[in-house]
Amino acid sequence: MSTPSIQPPSTYEPLNENTVVQFVKKLNYFTEDAALQVREIGDGNLNLVFHIVDESHAKSIIVKQALPYAKVVGESWPLTLERARFESSYLQKAAEYVPNLVPKVHYYDESLGLFVMDDLSSHLILRKGTIEGIQYPHLARDIGTFVAKVTFYTSDFYLHPFEKKQLVKQFINPELCKITEDLVFTDPFFDHETNDFPTEIREAVEQLWNDSELRHEVAKLKFQFLTQAEALLHGDLHTGSIFVTPESTKVIDPEFSFFGPIGFDLGQFFANIILSYLSQEAHILSSKERKQYQSYLVDTLKQTWSSFKQEFSKLWENEGNEVYTQVPGTLESFLGKVWVDAVGFAGCEVIRRTIGLAHVADLDTIQDLTQQYQLKEKALELGTYFIKNRTQITNMEQLIQVFYQE
Amino acid sequence: MSTPSIQPPSTYEPLNENTVVQFVKKLNYFTEDAALQVREIGDGNLNLVFHIVDESHAKSIIVKQALPYAKVVGESWPLTLERARFESSYLQKAAEYVPNLVPKVHYYDESLGLFVMDDLSSHLILRKGTIEGIQYPHLARDIGTFVAKVTFYTSDFYLHPFEKKQLVKQFINPELCKITEDLVFTDPFFDHETNDFPTEIREAVEQLWNDSELRHEVAKLKFQFLTQAEALLHGDLHTGSIFVTPESTKVIDPEFSFFGPIGFDLGQFFANIILSYLSQEAHILSSKERKQYQSYLVDTLKQTWSSFKQEFSKLWENEGNEVYTQVPGTLESFLGKVWVDAVGFAGCEVIRRTIGLAHVADLDTIQDLTQQYQLKEKALELGTYFIKNRTQITNMEQLIQVFYQE
Repeated sequence: MSTPSIQPPSTYEPLNENTVVQFVKKLNYFTEDAALQVREIGDGNLNLVFHIVDESHAKSIIVKQALPYAKVVGESWPLTLERARFESSYLQKAAEYVPNLVPKVHYYDESLGLFVMDDLSSHLILRKGTIEGIQYPHLARDIGTFVAKVTFYTSDFYLHPFEKKQLVKQFINPELCKITEDLVFTDPFFDHETNDFPTEIREAVEQLWNDSELRHEVAKLKFQFLTQAEALLHGDLHTGSIFVTPESTKVIDPEFSFFGPIGFDLGQFFANIILSYLSQEAHILSSKERKQYQSYLVDTLKQTWSSFKQEFSKLWENEGNEVYTQVPGTLESFLGKVWVDAVGFAGCEVIRRTIGLAHVADLDTIQDLTQQYQLKEKALELGTYFIKNRTQITNMEQLIQVFYQE
Repeated sequence: MSTPSIQPPSTYEPLNENTVVQFVKKLNYFTEDAALQVREIGDGNLNLVFHIVDESHAKSIIVKQALPYAKVVGESWPLTLERARFESSYLQKAAEYVPNLVPKVHYYDESLGLFVMDDLSSHLILRKGTIEGIQYPHLARDIGTFVAKVTFYTSDFYLHPFEKKQLVKQFINPELCKITEDLVFTDPFFDHETNDFPTEIREAVEQLWNDSELRHEVAKLKFQFLTQAEALLHGDLHTGSIFVTPESTKVIDPEFSFFGPIGFDLGQFFANIILSYLSQEAHILSSKERKQYQSYLVDTLKQTWSSFKQEFSKLWENEGNEVYTQVPGTLESFLGKVWVDAVGFAGCEVIRRTIGLAHVADLDTIQDLTQQYQLKEKALELGTYFIKNRTQITNMEQLIQVFYQE
């Protein structure tokens, strides 16, 4: 069987704080005499991330280098360096349409598996912000616009079919997609060793494993993920892949990018906002403040979907090149498909973030374990409901009614 | 915009009856002293086809060479030579699973855009056979098996996802897919210059163009064709792409091969059998014989689908590697999707073969023009019905009831 070659190129070496400084000096981004400060700030799963600062000139930059293995499970899970290409290519492609919503890529080096990009350390990871109860008034509009523009402009509705197929080929991403295929769509729905949940919720988990209707519906969603090359997706658009300030939104970490069903990016974002909503019960103790913040999160869901819909529709009407974009009803039925897919994918994400390999801090940092387990069971229920009822949940109001308590 | 390079490689030259003999002599397929007879037998749309015979040793072979343009519309429609790669690669891939149902490929030369394969001149093109009212007792089982095996073994149900994605990439076929996107899914549903139909049926054609529900449904089918990379398809499986004898079936001409929705191959085959059924009214004058032959064609439809279903199910159960193939209900719901798609694609094919650029001899050779036009109108009605009602037509019996008169 042909698998991607896992040997790094012969010139590859993981950089350290000394060699990375030598490397960036050659790029002429900093002046020659600059006194550079450097720190490795990666969370260390898959990449080295160097933050390089020239304090005297108030300039800084990020160097992100792919490691040839996934640290999360030790060196035994080898990965190619190709993901640096996927990540930098996606950021460059997205910058054509939403330059304000992604960090600018300055340089890409294939043999070292690294790229150089804007420093966003003035921003906070959105997940940390939502755990702290911070509101981001532009977030929903930005993410809705982001998904609408990147997906529309890389879809058959806009691109010439030759150009679309060329891009599909360029973004065929077997390795990273395999991680999603396994960790989002498969392992959590079977008694698999990668799963991770407390014994206390095992009964609820087993109930999920024994739900044959659920598995059958997840099979359909997995098959859509595997086969439906609708548009260029970020592929991992959770709240840990978004950098924010109250004024600015930057989407990062698109190493999972590939051509897939548009609802997938939206569904992952929705799911992580919903996980934040659920966990607020533990994070914000004042009932009044909690209600306020949860109401902000619900508004974020509503506005993300409505911004997406509005922007996508505007692009479809004004810039659709595919002749069928002019046929009445086609936009509405396509948006209908995206919505149903998004609800289903959101369900999968809620479940895998609760019992799969990669959890969310929103739930896992809850100190009161009884409460944590109750909320995790609630998440499993919600995810299951979304997946099984996705064709009946016809709009965002209905989706929100499933968990919203006024 | 990036389009495929249309310049043939510098070493390319179209062969003639002299140079092709020099070429095959180098391949050592014939003995050195063989007296070779050669004839160019292509129908001349896209390729040169040389039939080379060594009578004294009773050996013969076919050399098929791609032309760098489509003759059907003159040299003004340039095409790359890549389709020789698609065609020979598909035949070689299919030979892994159904070696008895494709001609064996002996040699492929990229720079000349040619390949060498078994001579099938003992066989007749199926379309000629059905116009002449010849029955082929193994045809249905062979085509059902062919589609089941080639699609199952190239799908995510069987292949490791790395291998599947590698194959998808290898079979991204922008040029030939574009022809289908235009001629099957677009032009016939709009007042486009490529369309070709007699003025006498213009009213029926305009009715079709004004049917907004129809266009809306065709848009969905076109989008499925553009995006759903389920399995390796032949891409042009009409009765002109099948060579037959009463004992043998050989699928040829897979230059349109690509990864698409499995129902597309089945739908095109169904459509062409149905067009044969309709046209028999003009070809077989004896009512009794006509009924018999039409009943054979209806059996062919039934058996093709049942053979496909049976073979695909057997493979799914015995050789499915994707874990969800073991989940009850997933096979049935996938086959349900393939069926609905096949009915819709069949509708598109029936319509485009009636009023689009590429017709079928079944209808066009009908001498009684009044009858020809009536049958063409009937074909438009049928195609429209299939497309609009594909989710309601839940099985082959129901599909047949739409046109079958006992």
